[in-house]
Amino acid sequence: MTNLEYNNELKQKYTHFSRDLNEKFINIHPIQRGGILTKEAYKALVAYGDGYSLCDNCLKGRIDKIENPPVADFLNDMAKFLNIDNIMPTAAARESKKIAMEVLSNKYPNRKTVIVDSLAHYTTYLAIETNNLKVKEVTNSGYPEYDLNLEQYRDIIKEVLEEEDELPLLVVLTHVDYKYGNYNNPELVGKICNEFDIPFLLNTAYSSGILPIDCKQSDVDFIACSGHKSMSASGPIGLLGFKKEFFDDVMVHSKIQGNITNKSFPNKICTFNGCPPVYGAPLITLMASFPEIVRRTQNKYVQEESEKANYVIEKIQEIPDIQVLGKLPKIHPLTNVETKAFNKVADSHPRRGFFLRDEFKERGIIGMLPGISTEIKFNTYGLSWSQVEHFADSILDIAKKYNII
Amino acid sequence: MTNLEYNNELKQKYTHFSRDLNEKFINIHPIQRGGILTKEAYKALVAYGDGYSLCDNCLKGRIDKIENPPVADFLNDMAKFLNIDNIMPTAAARESKKIAMEVLSNKYPNRKTVIVDSLAHYTTYLAIETNNLKVKEVTNSGYPEYDLNLEQYRDIIKEVLEEEDELPLLVVLTHVDYKYGNYNNPELVGKICNEFDIPFLLNTAYSSGILPIDCKQSDVDFIACSGHKSMSASGPIGLLGFKKEFFDDVMVHSKIQGNITNKSFPNKICTFNGCPPVYGAPLITLMASFPEIVRRTQNKYVQEESEKANYVIEKIQEIPDIQVLGKLPKIHPLTNVETKAFNKVADSHPRRGFFLRDEFKERGIIGMLPGISTEIKFNTYGLSWSQVEHFADSILDIAKKYNII
Repeated sequence: MTNLEYNNELKQKYTHFSRDLNEKFINIHPIQRGGILTKEAYKALVAYGDGYSLCDNCLKGRIDKIENPPVADFLNDMAKFLNIDNIMPTAAARESKKIAMEVLSNKYPNRKTVIVDSLAHYTTYLAIETNNLKVKEVTNSGYPEYDLNLEQYRDIIKEVLEEEDELPLLVVLTHVDYKYGNYNNPELVGKICNEFDIPFLLNTAYSSGILPIDCKQSDVDFIACSGHKSMSASGPIGLLGFKKEFFDDVMVHSKIQGNITNKSFPNKICTFNGCPPVYGAPLITLMASFPEIVRRTQNKYVQEESEKANYVIEKIQEIPDIQVLGKLPKIHPLTNVETKAFNKVADSHPRRGFFLRDEFKERGIIGMLPGISTEIKFNTYGLSWSQVEHFADSILDIAKKYNII
Repeated sequence: MTNLEYNNELKQKYTHFSRDLNEKFINIHPIQRGGILTKEAYKALVAYGDGYSLCDNCLKGRIDKIENPPVADFLNDMAKFLNIDNIMPTAAARESKKIAMEVLSNKYPNRKTVIVDSLAHYTTYLAIETNNLKVKEVTNSGYPEYDLNLEQYRDIIKEVLEEEDELPLLVVLTHVDYKYGNYNNPELVGKICNEFDIPFLLNTAYSSGILPIDCKQSDVDFIACSGHKSMSASGPIGLLGFKKEFFDDVMVHSKIQGNITNKSFPNKICTFNGCPPVYGAPLITLMASFPEIVRRTQNKYVQEESEKANYVIEKIQEIPDIQVLGKLPKIHPLTNVETKAFNKVADSHPRRGFFLRDEFKERGIIGMLPGISTEIKFNTYGLSWSQVEHFADSILDIAKKYNII
C-alpha cells in the first residue's frame, strides 16, 4: 500500500464520526441522560476544545489555582453547593473512590476492610481490589425491591472490629445505584459511621447534579461525583469532595528530589499526579453547566423529574407480568422494569432479544441494551413531557403489536 | 441572597467562557501547539461532546473493545503506527508512566530504582514518588546545550546493580524534553537496556504525533504518549504502548468477589479502573485526528516544522546577548531562548517582566510565560510561514522599540 492509499484508508475510517443522536432520537440510555451538555457547556466545549486549552493562563502550575477562567472560584462554589469543605477534580467518580481509599490506607495502614452496599458499582469493588483491601457487603431485600438494609452497616462494623481488632477503613454508600436507581438516604449511614468514627464515602455518580445533596447534614467525609454521568459535563471528569480534617492527607505535596539536579516539586500534589486530567473541555464544560446544575437540583425540578419516571411506570402497568425492579415510587428516574412478556416474544422472534431494540429505534428511541428483552432499563431524566409520553406510548404500542395486550 | 439572585450570580460567572484565541491570536505556548484540534477532530468534538457519548454502543463493557465507532480498530492502527505490540488509552502521558512503574513494581517487587534523564518532566518524578521508588538521574552537559550524556545510562545501571544487588526497575528517556525541546535518539538507550534486560520506557509526550517514532527499532518496551499535547486531541488523553511480553502484567483482570453477592468482574481491567477515563470527546477527537497525525509525522513535514523554529532562531541573532538554550539545529520546534537584553529592559520598565508579554500581545501573539523576560519559550509547530515570519519580526520589532538593536 502506498502512503497515499494508507492515508485515504485512514481518512475513510476515522474522519466521518457523527452522533446526532440527541437531535434525531430520544436517548434513554441510563448512563447518558445526566451527561447531556447544556447550551452553555456546548459553547464552552467549542471554545475550549483544543488539547490543554484551560492551561493558557496557568500562573501557579496547578489547575486548581487557575483564576482565568475561574477554576479556583468554581471549586469553592461547588464545595458550598455540596456542603463539604474541599473539592478537587479527578478523572472520574471511580478515581475519586480509588483516591479516597488510597489516602485512608496511608493514614490507617492497619485497617483493611471497606464496607459497601450490595448495589455498589463495579468500580467501587475495583477501587477496593487495587488498594489491596477486603470487601464486606451490606445485604439488600432482594427481588423485586432490592432495598438495602442500611442498619446492617452497624452490625458489619462490629463484626470487622471483632474479627480484625481494627476499625474498617471506610464505609461506602451508593447514593443512587446504577442497576435499579434506588435512592438511599445517607443520613442514617452517616450517623452510624459517626458513632464509630469511621470515614464515610458517599458515591453520587448518578445523583449529584440530579438530586440535592448536603454532605454536612449526612456526616459525609468523602463524596465522589461524576460530571459526565450527572452534571452535564463532557467526559471525563469526576469530583472528590472531602472534609477539612482530611485536607493534608489528600493534598500530599511532592517531596522527591533529583539526586544530581536537586530538582524538587513541592507545589505539586502527588495524589493527583500534579494536576488531575481534566485540562480542557471536561472542566470548562462542567463549570459552564454549573448554574444549571444548581437550578435543576432544586426540589420542584427534582420532583418533576421523578414524576416523569413514575408516569411511565404507571402507564405500562397494563402489560402483563410487568414488574418494576427497585423501590417505588421512583425518586431518581433511573428505572429497571422486568418484562417477561417481551421475553416470550423474543423466544420466537427471528431477531431474538434484539427485536425490542429494533422496535424502539423505529419509534425514534435509542439507548436500550442490545439483545435484552427480559428487562428494560431506562432513564427519563431531562426528557420533555411529550418525549416521556411518546416513550410510554411506544412501550404500549410494541406490546400491542405483539399481542401482549 | 435569593435563589434567583444566586443563580444570576452563577450565570454571570460561569456561562460566558470564550477562547477564540486561535482565531484572533497566534498562540506560541509550548504546551498548546501540538494539541490544536484538526478540522475533523472539531467535528467529532461537537458530535460527541455529551458526557459518556462514546459508550452508546458499548456491547462488551470495555472501551477498548467498542466497535462503533471503531475504537478497537483504532488502537490496533495506533500500535502499528508507533510499531509496538499493544496500545491502551490512559488519562494522560503522566498516567501512562505511573501505570508502567506500578505494573513493573508488581512484577519485580525487589527492584526499586528508576533511572531517568535529568531533563525529565516533573510527572516522571511524581510517578517514581507515588510508586515508592528511588530516582537516579543521568547528567547533561549543562548550559547552554543541556545535552544528555546518554552513555551514562550504562554506568548508572552498573552502579545500581552494585549498590542494590538488583537491576533497576525501569529506564526512562524523555524523547523531547519540555524545557529545551532537546531531541534524544532512543536507539542507543534501547540498546543499553537490552544488554541488561531492563525495561525501557520512552516518554513521548512532546513528540509522538510530531516526530516519527519506531518503538521496535529502539527496543522500547513502554511508550507514553499525550493526545492533548501532541496529537491534536481534546484533553485529556494519553496512550500507553507496551510490548506483548508485558501484556498479562498490564492487562490485569479483576479477581475480587462480593462476600455476599458473589458478584465478580473478570472482564474488567484493574490497571485502568475498568475503563480508562477517555469516554467521550478525548478519544473520539484523537481518533478523528489520527489520519492527520500519520500524515504530519512523515519526514518532509517534520523537516519543514524544524525549519520554522530554526528560521526564527537565525532571524533573531542580531539581538545582543541572545543565547538559544538546548541543542542546535532544532529538530523539535519547542525552543527556549535566553534574552538577557530584554531582562535589562524589564529592570526599569514599570510593568517589569510583564512588559514582554504585553508587547507580544499587542502584536497578536500570546502564550508567553507571564512576568518572565529572561527567556522566551515558544513553539512554532503548525504555524503558517507568514505567522512564523510575523513572530520573528515581532521579536526584532520589540528589540528595536527598546533600543536593543
